Amino acid sequence: MSTAATRSRENTRARLLEAATQVFAEVGLEGATVEAVCERAGFTRGAFYSNFETKDELFLTLAASVGESRLAAVRERVSALVEAEGLDDCDPVELVQQIMDSGTDDRLGVMMMSEIRIRALRDPDFGAAYVAQESEMVGSIAAMIQEIVDAGQIALRMDAEEAARLLMVVWEGMTVRGAMVDDDPESLRRVGSEALGRMVELMRL
Amino acid sequence: MSTAATRSRENTRARLLEAATQVFAEVGLEGATVEAVCERAGFTRGAFYSNFETKDELFLTLAASVGESRLAAVRERVSALVEAEGLDDCDPVELVQQIMDSGTDDRLGVMMMSEIRIRALRDPDFGAAYVAQESEMVGSIAAMIQEIVDAGQIALRMDAEEAARLLMVVWEGMTVRGAMVDDDPESLRRVGSEALGRMVELMRL
Repeated sequence: MSTAATRSRENTRARLLEAATQVFAEVGLEGATVEAVCERAGFTRGAFYSNFETKDELFLTLAASVGESRLAAVRERVSALVEAEGLDDCDPVELVQQIMDSGTDDRLGVMMMSEIRIRALRDPDFGAAYVAQESEMVGSIAAMIQEIVDAGQIALRMDAEEAARLLMVVWEGMTVRGAMVDDDPESLRRVGSEALGRMVELMRL
Repeated sequence: MSTAATRSRENTRARLLEAATQVFAEVGLEGATVEAVCERAGFTRGAFYSNFETKDELFLTLAASVGESRLAAVRERVSALVEAEGLDDCDPVELVQQIMDSGTDDRLGVMMMSEIRIRALRDPDFGAAYVAQESEMVGSIAAMIQEIVDAGQIALRMDAEEAARLLMVVWEGMTVRGAMVDDDPESLRRVGSEALGRMVELMRL
């Protein structure tokens, strides 16, 4: 395939994934049809089927890409903070908030996260893949927390991995509840951050 | 309507709700059809429509009844524990675990809870009703926690309401993750209880 054709194909896939995110968030995975996704993306069904075999394959691709980009965002922050000289000068509560505060900060993102969760509950293979992906993310967050602990910035009442897992669960739970009552990304971010700050205070020795 | 007819009608509704729980859990709210619910319950569509106007009305009834029975279970335990003489002799960690450990302890329940969550995200009116119902539950749990605090059994680093909210979020998040990897109700219950015990330890002064 020529470079232009490859680019065009990637562009088509990206637009289909973007359209699918919106359609899934609006009507759910089960309610979404290939037709609705094509219509939203402005493509024919032919374009869809030259990229994905089924709606399910599209969803799995989407779910993996959401998870990977969340993971990549956390990893990037971990590296940036570890490389930075200024770790000693940061407020640990603020540090953790900065690391966690990535990705799912609008209602659409929260809905997508919820759809992925349902899918993980319904399909054991998908569930195992999801849990593995999440454990990787917890590992990245835990590594960051360990850096902060090793820098003498904070002492915790638990190991870094357990702290990371609790932070993630609380952040997700609070963000979801926030999204139910308020559609503003800024206040969603605030709700999540406040809960995380509170958790870090609880976990400090 | 005669007593027998009323009883029969209530029985039909109960069977439809039971069948709907299973169908929703299997294929989701969007994927579920009135036909599938009727078939599972062993009723005609006529029986369905003499009880519910739409699939949506059935779901709202179901969601409310799930929420109410969770709330009632928590309230019952609160009353029983408050009335019991032995409050002073209980281990506070175990007490909180007993209160929280009600209702949603199998994969079906967790899926239903997730469907309700998605619906609350998608529909602002439903979302507001869900959040209000959850706040009532948090209030009941908080009242119980306050009893334990007042009895001098434990001192907390936060008020009872915030403690109750955190416990609920952590319990839900851990139970959902548990349901993704293991279908056994007993180990689900254990995962949730362990997380709660850990949280209570963190929240103690």
